[in-house]
Amino acid sequence: MNKILTFGEIIMRLSPSGNRTMKQSHGMEFFFGGTELNVAASLASMGGEVKHVSCVSDDFVGESALAFVKSFGIDTSFITKNEHPLGLYFLEVGSAVRASRIAYNRLNGSFANIEAGKTDWKKALEGCGYFHWTGISPGISESAYESLKEGLQTARDMGIEITTDPAYRSNLWKYGKTGNEVLKELVGYSTIFIGGVAEINEILGSQFSSDKEGFLHACRELKQQVPSIHKIFDKIRIGVTASAQQTQGRALVEENYFETELLEVNPVVDRIGTGDAFAAGLIYGLQHFDDEKALHFANAACAIKHTILGDINYSSAEDILEVMAGNSGGRIKR
Amino acid sequence: MNKILTFGEIIMRLSPSGNRTMKQSHGMEFFFGGTELNVAASLASMGGEVKHVSCVSDDFVGESALAFVKSFGIDTSFITKNEHPLGLYFLEVGSAVRASRIAYNRLNGSFANIEAGKTDWKKALEGCGYFHWTGISPGISESAYESLKEGLQTARDMGIEITTDPAYRSNLWKYGKTGNEVLKELVGYSTIFIGGVAEINEILGSQFSSDKEGFLHACRELKQQVPSIHKIFDKIRIGVTASAQQTQGRALVEENYFETELLEVNPVVDRIGTGDAFAAGLIYGLQHFDDEKALHFANAACAIKHTILGDINYSSAEDILEVMAGNSGGRIKR
Amino acid sequence: MNKILTFGEIIMRLSPSGNRTMKQSHGMEFFFGGTELNVAASLASMGGEVKHVSCVSDDFVGESALAFVKSFGIDTSFITKNEHPLGLYFLEVGSAVRASRIAYNRLNGSFANIEAGKTDWKKALEGCGYFHWTGISPGISESAYESLKEGLQTARDMGIEITTDPAYRSNLWKYGKTGNEVLKELVGYSTIFIGGVAEINEILGSQFSSDKEGFLHACRELKQQVPSIHKIFDKIRIGVTASAQQTQGRALVEENYFETELLEVNPVVDRIGTGDAFAAGLIYGLQHFDDEKALHFANAACAIKHTILGDINYSSAEDILEVMAGNSGGRIKR
Amino acid sequence: MNKILTFGEIIMRLSPSGNRTMKQSHGMEFFFGGTELNVAASLASMGGEVKHVSCVSDDFVGESALAFVKSFGIDTSFITKNEHPLGLYFLEVGSAVRASRIAYNRLNGSFANIEAGKTDWKKALEGCGYFHWTGISPGISESAYESLKEGLQTARDMGIEITTDPAYRSNLWKYGKTGNEVLKELVGYSTIFIGGVAEINEILGSQFSSDKEGFLHACRELKQQVPSIHKIFDKIRIGVTASAQQTQGRALVEENYFETELLEVNPVVDRIGTGDAFAAGLIYGLQHFDDEKALHFANAACAIKHTILGDINYSSAEDILEVMAGNSGGRIKR
Amino acid sequence: MNKILTFGEIIMRLSPSGNRTMKQSHGMEFFFGGTELNVAASLASMGGEVKHVSCVSDDFVGESALAFVKSFGIDTSFITKNEHPLGLYFLEVGSAVRASRIAYNRLNGSFANIEAGKTDWKKALEGCGYFHWTGISPGISESAYESLKEGLQTARDMGIEITTDPAYRSNLWKYGKTGNEVLKELVGYSTIFIGGVAEINEILGSQFSSDKEGFLHACRELKQQVPSIHKIFDKIRIGVTASAQQTQGRALVEENYFETELLEVNPVVDRIGTGDAFAAGLIYGLQHFDDEKALHFANAACAIKHTILGDINYSSAEDILEVMAGNSGGRIKR
Amino acid sequence: MNKILTFGEIIMRLSPSGNRTMKQSHGMEFFFGGTELNVAASLASMGGEVKHVSCVSDDFVGESALAFVKSFGIDTSFITKNEHPLGLYFLEVGSAVRASRIAYNRLNGSFANIEAGKTDWKKALEGCGYFHWTGISPGISESAYESLKEGLQTARDMGIEITTDPAYRSNLWKYGKTGNEVLKELVGYSTIFIGGVAEINEILGSQFSSDKEGFLHACRELKQQVPSIHKIFDKIRIGVTASAQQTQGRALVEENYFETELLEVNPVVDRIGTGDAFAAGLIYGLQHFDDEKALHFANAACAIKHTILGDINYSSAEDILEVMAGNSGGRIKR
Repeated sequence: MNKILTFGEIIMRLSPSGNRTMKQSHGMEFFFGGTELNVAASLASMGGEVKHVSCVSDDFVGESALAFVKSFGIDTSFITKNEHPLGLYFLEVGSAVRASRIAYNRLNGSFANIEAGKTDWKKALEGCGYFHWTGISPGISESAYESLKEGLQTARDMGIEITTDPAYRSNLWKYGKTGNEVLKELVGYSTIFIGGVAEINEILGSQFSSDKEGFLHACRELKQQVPSIHKIFDKIRIGVTASAQQTQGRALVEENYFETELLEVNPVVDRIGTGDAFAAGLIYGLQHFDDEKALHFANAACAIKHTILGDINYSSAEDILEVMAGNSGGRIKR
Repeated sequence: MNKILTFGEIIMRLSPSGNRTMKQSHGMEFFFGGTELNVAASLASMGGEVKHVSCVSDDFVGESALAFVKSFGIDTSFITKNEHPLGLYFLEVGSAVRASRIAYNRLNGSFANIEAGKTDWKKALEGCGYFHWTGISPGISESAYESLKEGLQTARDMGIEITTDPAYRSNLWKYGKTGNEVLKELVGYSTIFIGGVAEINEILGSQFSSDKEGFLHACRELKQQVPSIHKIFDKIRIGVTASAQQTQGRALVEENYFETELLEVNPVVDRIGTGDAFAAGLIYGLQHFDDEKALHFANAACAIKHTILGDINYSSAEDILEVMAGNSGGRIKR
Repeated sequence: MNKILTFGEIIMRLSPSGNRTMKQSHGMEFFFGGTELNVAASLASMGGEVKHVSCVSDDFVGESALAFVKSFGIDTSFITKNEHPLGLYFLEVGSAVRASRIAYNRLNGSFANIEAGKTDWKKALEGCGYFHWTGISPGISESAYESLKEGLQTARDMGIEITTDPAYRSNLWKYGKTGNEVLKELVGYSTIFIGGVAEINEILGSQFSSDKEGFLHACRELKQQVPSIHKIFDKIRIGVTASAQQTQGRALVEENYFETELLEVNPVVDRIGTGDAFAAGLIYGLQHFDDEKALHFANAACAIKHTILGDINYSSAEDILEVMAGNSGGRIKR
Repeated sequence: MNKILTFGEIIMRLSPSGNRTMKQSHGMEFFFGGTELNVAASLASMGGEVKHVSCVSDDFVGESALAFVKSFGIDTSFITKNEHPLGLYFLEVGSAVRASRIAYNRLNGSFANIEAGKTDWKKALEGCGYFHWTGISPGISESAYESLKEGLQTARDMGIEITTDPAYRSNLWKYGKTGNEVLKELVGYSTIFIGGVAEINEILGSQFSSDKEGFLHACRELKQQVPSIHKIFDKIRIGVTASAQQTQGRALVEENYFETELLEVNPVVDRIGTGDAFAAGLIYGLQHFDDEKALHFANAACAIKHTILGDINYSSAEDILEVMAGNSGGRIKR
Repeated sequence: MNKILTFGEIIMRLSPSGNRTMKQSHGMEFFFGGTELNVAASLASMGGEVKHVSCVSDDFVGESALAFVKSFGIDTSFITKNEHPLGLYFLEVGSAVRASRIAYNRLNGSFANIEAGKTDWKKALEGCGYFHWTGISPGISESAYESLKEGLQTARDMGIEITTDPAYRSNLWKYGKTGNEVLKELVGYSTIFIGGVAEINEILGSQFSSDKEGFLHACRELKQQVPSIHKIFDKIRIGVTASAQQTQGRALVEENYFETELLEVNPVVDRIGTGDAFAAGLIYGLQHFDDEKALHFANAACAIKHTILGDINYSSAEDILEVMAGNSGGRIKR
Repeated sequence: MNKILTFGEIIMRLSPSGNRTMKQSHGMEFFFGGTELNVAASLASMGGEVKHVSCVSDDFVGESALAFVKSFGIDTSFITKNEHPLGLYFLEVGSAVRASRIAYNRLNGSFANIEAGKTDWKKALEGCGYFHWTGISPGISESAYESLKEGLQTARDMGIEITTDPAYRSNLWKYGKTGNEVLKELVGYSTIFIGGVAEINEILGSQFSSDKEGFLHACRELKQQVPSIHKIFDKIRIGVTASAQQTQGRALVEENYFETELLEVNPVVDRIGTGDAFAAGLIYGLQHFDDEKALHFANAACAIKHTILGDINYSSAEDILEVMAGNSGGRIKR
C-alpha cells in the first residue's frame, strides 16, 4: 500500500541553452516534465514506488518521453498514446533582474485529448497509498478533467490519501468550465491540501491575509468547507531575483501549526518544479517521518531542487536530509 | 515589377544534433522554414526582392521567427500575429539505410488560424512579378485555403505570374476538404506549374507513366485542362540512400522539351527544402535567363541545397552558377 | 516463456565528439553499452521482454548506468552493486583510411568483481525462453566466468535456448585461464551458435577456410563436437574503410544452408554493437519468424545499427523490416 | 522625424564559451556588436526605427554581419563594403575576482578603411530626429573621423539632435591625432551629452570631482564651453566584482538635476554594451517620456542589459518598464 | 637552482557540463590534473621552470595527458608509461546548497603501478631548488610511496627545499599501510609545511584547536617533532555554499606569525585545485618575495583559482598581484 | 643533426562547426596552424625533433598559440612577440558539390610585422639537418621575406638540406614585390623541391604539360636552372568533390622516376594541411627510409591527414605505415 499514483500531462520543455534569449539561439535543450510527473520522478529518485497515468503522442517524441519516465523505474503501464502531438513549452531563462518567460503549446496536445472512461482506475490504484493531482490537469481540457474525476472518485472509494496541489493558472481553462468551479469540486475529494492562503482564497472566494493569523483562519475555513481535508501544508517561495530564491514551509495538521526556517538558494539553477519537489518531499516525508519532519523534509527538497537543471528533483532522500541538517553544500563529497 | 510574393506557414524544425535519435538526445538544433518561406529566403539569398505573407505566434517564438525572416531582407509587413503557437515539427535525421522521420505539430498553430479577409492583397502584390504558392498551405486549414484563394484571385487579376508547387501531403487535409478537390481548383490559377507526372496524376486523376513520353502526355493533358499554364518544370530527386541523392530537371515550355544532366550529391547534409531550392532557382532563372538555362540553374540550386543545413538554400546566384558549370566543389575558394 | 535473459558487463564508452582525436578534445560523449547489454537493449527496442544480470559501481556512475538500462524497460532486479568503479573504455572514432582506436579500463571494475554464487539464477531465468552470453564476460575475470557458468548450468537444466557469441578478444584473459580452454567449456552449454569459421577455428583449434564449403565443414565439425548446438548463424561484416561497411549473414540449421544478400552501409555512423544488433535481431527473429527470415532480419538489424550512434540498436522491428524489404532510406517518413 | 541614425564600426566579438580561458578552449561563441550598433539594435528592439551607417568586409563575414543587423529591421542601405577584413576582438570573460580581458584586431579593418566623402548624409539623415555617435569611431582611423565629421555637420545643419557618448579609449588614436583634440572638436556639434565628470575632465582638461557638486560644476562648465549642449546625462556603473554590478543615472537638464536609485545586478551575465543600453534607453526615453522618466528608463535598460549575453540589449520597452517599476525578476512570465 | 620538481599522479577529471547531474548528461568535459601536477602547471603559468615526475598509460589517453603537460612548457622527460589505464575521476559539480560529488577510478591505474627504483632522481633534481609533494601520492599504492621516498631522500641529500602538503584522504590507503604512519615518516623530510591545525593533529595525533593560539601551539609542536621544518603556511578555505567561498592564509616562520585578509569569491567557478594554487603561489612567492608577501600572494592565487575551470590556475603572476592589490575584477582589461 | 627547423606564420583558423555556413552560426571552432607550423607539428607527432621560428601577438591569443605549439614538444625559443594581432582566417567548410571558402585577416598581423635581423639563425639552426619553408611566408610582407632570406642564407652556408614548397597564392604579394620574382630568388637556395608542373611553370614561366613526360621535362629544366636542387617530389591531390579526394605522389631523384598508387579518401574530414602532411611525411621519410619509400610514406601521410580535423596531421609514424601497407581503416584497433 506504499505506492503512489500520479496523474497528469507529460510535457516537453524547450529552452535555449546558457541563458540565451531565443533570438540568439540555434539550439535548445529539452527536458520532459509536467507538474505531476515531476512529483512522480522526484519521489522515485528518493526511492518511492510510483505509477504515472497519462497520455502521450504516438510518435518518436512520445516514445522518448516514455523512455525518460521508465528511466526512473516508474510504472508506465497506464500511459496511453494517441495521434495528437505531445504538449510542450518554450522557456527563456531569466537572470537577476530579468524574469524568465514561457510560451505554451499544450491545449491541443495528446494529454488534452486523453480519452475519459478508458483507464482501469481500480487496477491502476492497486497497492497505492497516495493519489497526487494538481489543478493544472483539469484546466487543460474537459476530457482531462473527466479522467481525473474518475480517478479521484475511485481513490476516495478505496480510502486512498488524496494530495492536492490546486495550482490555478489563468492561461488554462479555455474549454468552457472555469477554474474556480472545477477546483472547488475536485478539491472536495482531497485529504491533504498542499497550498496556502492565495490558493484557499482562490477556491473559496475568500480574502484571508497571508500572515500566520490569516493562514490559520484560511485553513480552518477550508477544513470546515471540505471536511475530508485533515492536513494542510503550505510552501512559500520568495523570488528575490531570478537568480536568488528563498523557501519556507508551514502547516496546520489537526490543530498543530508548524513552520520551517527560511532556506536561501543563490544562485538558482532552475526554478521550474520546485513546488513539485516540495509536494514529492512531503509525500515521501509523510510515508517515512512525522508531520513536522515531513514539512522540513519537503522544504529542503524544494530548496535543493533550485540547484538542479530540468523539472525533476534528482536528489536522493539522503541528499535532502543533508540540506535539512544545514549542510550548506560547501564541501565536496568524495 | 520584379518582386516576388510568397505565402505560407513559417514553421520551426527541431532536430537532435549529429544524427542522434531523439531518445539519445538532451538537445535539439532548431531552424525556421516552411516550404514557401524556403523559396522566399532562397530567392533573397540569390539577390531577389521578396515579400512573405504569413501569420506567426504573438510570443517570443514568433518574434524569433520574424527576426529570422528579416535577416534575409525579406519584407515582413504583411505577416500578422495571433494567440496560437507557432507550428513546428521534429525531425530525426537518418543516414545511409536509415530513413529520416518527421513528427508534426502544426494543425492548431498560428498559421492554421490565419484570418481570411484580412490581407490587403492588392497592396501586398504591388510591384510583384511572381506569386509563389504550394499545396501545403491549403492543406493545413480552411482559413489558410481561403486566404490563399484571395491572394491567387488578386494575383490573377493583376496579371502576375503564378508559380505552383502542388505538393500533396496525405497527412494534411484534416479540416473537411480533400486535397484533390482543392488542388484542382487552385491549380486553375497557375501560369507556371512546378511538378511532374506524379503530381499531375494526383490532380487529374490520370495514370501517366513517369518516363519522358508519359511526362509529355501528362503535361499536354494538364495544359489542356488548365489553359493558363504555359510552362511546366519538373524536378526529379532520386534518393539512393538517406546519404546520397541525385537530382535532375526536365521541362515542357510551349512545345519545347528540355532536360538537365543528373547531378549527384554525396554525402547529403540536409534533404529538407531541396524542392523549394529548385522552385526558387527556377523563379530566379526565369527572371534572369532563358527557360532552358533557368531549368539548369534550378537543378543546380536543388543540388547545392543538399549540402546546406536547415531548410534554406543560402547560396548566392554565383555559387549556383559554379555548380551549374560543373565545379564539383573539390577546390577551396580563398 | 518469451523473456530473454542476458548476462554481462555494463560498460561506459567515452568518445571525443565529431571524429576528433583525444588530443584535440576537451569534451567527450558517453554511452553505456557492453556486448550483452547491447543485445538486451536492442531486443527491448524491438519489443522484447528482457532481464539483464550484471554488477555496477555503487556510486552516481553506476546509478546513471542503471537509469539507462531501465529506460528500455529492461528488468534490472538482478543487477547488483559493489565498491569498484564501473568499467569503461575510450574510443577515438576513425574515418575513411584512419582506423578507430580503443583504450580499455575494465579489468578491475565492478563487473570484474561480480561475486559468484550470489545470483538466484532459477528466479532470474523464470519465464525466459533464451539465455544469451558472449565470450567477453568469461575473459574479464574468474568470478565473471564462474557467475556465467552457474547461469549456463541452470539454463541448461531448465531447457532454455542458449545463444552464444564466442567473441574472442586477445586483450582479455589476464586472470590465469586461457580463452581457448574456457570458451570450449562454455560453448558446450550452447544450443544456438552465433559465429563463423574464425570463431569455430578458434575454439576447435581447426583450420577451416572461410568460403561456403569451409563454413559447412566447420559447422558440421562443431555440431559433432558440441551436439547440443542445433543452429549456427554467421554474421559477416566487411570493413571497406572506417566509413563504409558491408554485412551479410549465412546459416546452417539442421542440414539447411541459407545466406542473405550483402547490405552496404555508407557512411557508417557507428560500428560498435553491430554484431550485437545481429544477435538481437536473430533472437527476435527466431521468436517471431522462421529460421531463414530470422537470418535476414538479423542481417538487416546489423546493417541499420551502423547508422545509429552508441552501442545500442534503437530500431523497432518495423524499422528493421523496412531495411529487410530493401528500403534504402532515401525517403523521409512523415 | 522619429528615426534615429547611428554611425560606427560593426565588430565581431569572439569569446571562449562558459568562462573558459582561451588556452582551455577549442571553440568560441561570436557576437556582432560595436558601441553604436549596440545603440541601434537596442533601440530597434524597443521598437525604434533605426538606420546604421558603417562599412563591412566584402566577404562571408561581412555578409553575416549584415544579416545580423537586418534581423533587427535596421535599415542597412548606407552600409558599404570594402576589401579589408571585418574588425574583431577576443574576450576572455572574467568572474568574481578575475577581470575580463580583451584583445583587439580592428585598426586595419573594413571600418577603419571606410572612405570619407562617399556617404550621402542628407539622404541618410532624412526622417531622422536623432544622430548618435561615440568617441570610439574617430579614434579608429582618420577616414572614420572624417566620415563622422561630415555626418555631424549635415545633422547640425538639418537641426537634428546629436547625442554624444565621448567614450575615450587610450588604446585607439594611433593614426596621428590625439583623442583630446578630436573629441573636443566633435563634441562641439552635440546637443545631448551622455557622460559624466571623467569624460568632461578628459575633454576640457579640467579636474572636477565626481560627487554631485563636482558633477554640477563640470556640467555647467561644459555647457558654457559648448553652448549647443542643452542636456547632460551621466551613467554610473560600479563594478563590485566581475560578477556583480551596480548602475545609477544622474542628469542636468537646463538647471534641473535628477538622479535615479542604484540598481544591483548579480550575477552579471555580460557587461559589454551596458553603457550602450543606457544610451539607447535614453534616446527612446527622450522620444517617449519626459527627461526624468527618460533617465530612469535609461538606467533600467542599462541594468537589464547586464543579464543578456552579447553586445545588444534585446529587451522590449515593456521589459525595461518592468525593471523600472521595481520588478526584481523573481517571477516567471507565462 | 630555481627549478621546481613535482611528483604525483596525472589524473583525468570527467564532469557533466553545465552543472548537470550525470543522469542528465550524454557528454562530459574532461581536464587533466592531479594535486601535484596542478602545482606544477600553476607554477609554470606564473613563469616558473618545472619538472614533473609521474607515470601515465601507454595509450592515446596517456599521450593526450602528456601533450597537456607539455603545453605548459613543463619538462616531461622523467614521466614513464606503463600498460595500466590512466587514473580518473568523475565529478558532479554542485551549486548553492547542493554539494559536489566525486567518484574515483585510480587505485589500479598507471600511477598506482609506477615502478619504484626506476627514476634517476639525481638527474631529475638537477638545477632544482624545490621538491613539492603531497600526501595523496603515498596513499595511492606502495610503489608510489616508495618512489616518493626515494625522491625525498635524494632531495634531502641535495639540500633542496621540500614543500609538503600532507593532504590526508580517508578513501585512499587501501594497500596495507595507514596514512598516519606513512605521512609521519615522509613529513620528516620536509622543510616547509603547507597545512594547518587539522593536518598537524592528523599527523601528530594531537588535538590542537583551530584558532590562532591553537595554530601557534600546533606549529611549535610540529617544529619540535620535525626539526627540519622551518616554515609553516596554512591555507584556510571556508565553504559558505557550493557557490561561495572564502580564503585566508596564516603562517609561522621562525617565530613570526602573519595572516592575510579574508578574500571572498562569489560565484565559485571551480573549487578543485584551489589548495594547489595556494601551494604554487607560495613556492613562487618564496622564490620572488619575502615570506609575508609570499603568503599574501599564495592567498590571492588561491582566490583567483576559484574563478577558473579545471584543476589548474592559469593565472600569470601579474594577474595574481592584481587580486592581491585588491582589484575586485570589476573592470575589463583592454 | 637530425632536428628540423621550420619558419612561418602561426595562424588561427575559425570555422563554424558542423558544416554550417557562418550566417547559420553563433559559434566557431578554432585551430592553430599555418602551412610551415603544420609541417613542424606533423613531424613532431611522428617523433621528429623540431624548432619553429615565428612571431606571435603579445596577448592571450598569442599565449594560447604558443601553448598549442609547445604541446607537441616543439622548441619555441625562437618565437618572438609583438603588438600586432595574430593572423587568422575564417573557413566555411564545404561538402559534396559545395566548395569550402576562406576569408583572411593576416596581412597586418604579428607575423607580417616580424622584425628582420633579429633572429640568431646560427643558433636556431644548430643541430638541424633540414630547413623547411614555403612560398606563403615571403608573400605576406617584406619583413617576412627578409627574415626568411636571412635564414636561407645561413642554412645554405651551414650545408643544411633546404626543402621548399613554393606554394604560390595570388591573394598574397600585396607589399610591392611579385610572387614570381621572389619565389625564383628564394627557390635558388633549395636542395629539395616539393612541387609539380604547375609550380615549376609558375617559377620558370614555362608551359610544361602535367603528364609524366611533362613532369620529367619540367624537373630537368628546374634542375638545370637551380643546380642546388637534387630531388623533386610532387604531391598530386585530386578533388573529386569537397567530400572525396585522391592523392598520389611522384618524384624525380637524380635520374630515377618513382610514383605511388592513387589513395582514395571518402569522406574527407578536413582538406587543410594535407599538402603540409605530405611535406612532413617526406622529410620524416628522407630521414628514415630510402627516397622511394619516403615518397610512399609522404603520400600515405597526405591521405590520412584528410581524416583529421584541423591543420595538423596528428598521426604517428606507425599510423602512417599502416595506411601505406594498405590497411583501409575498416578494423578497430583495441
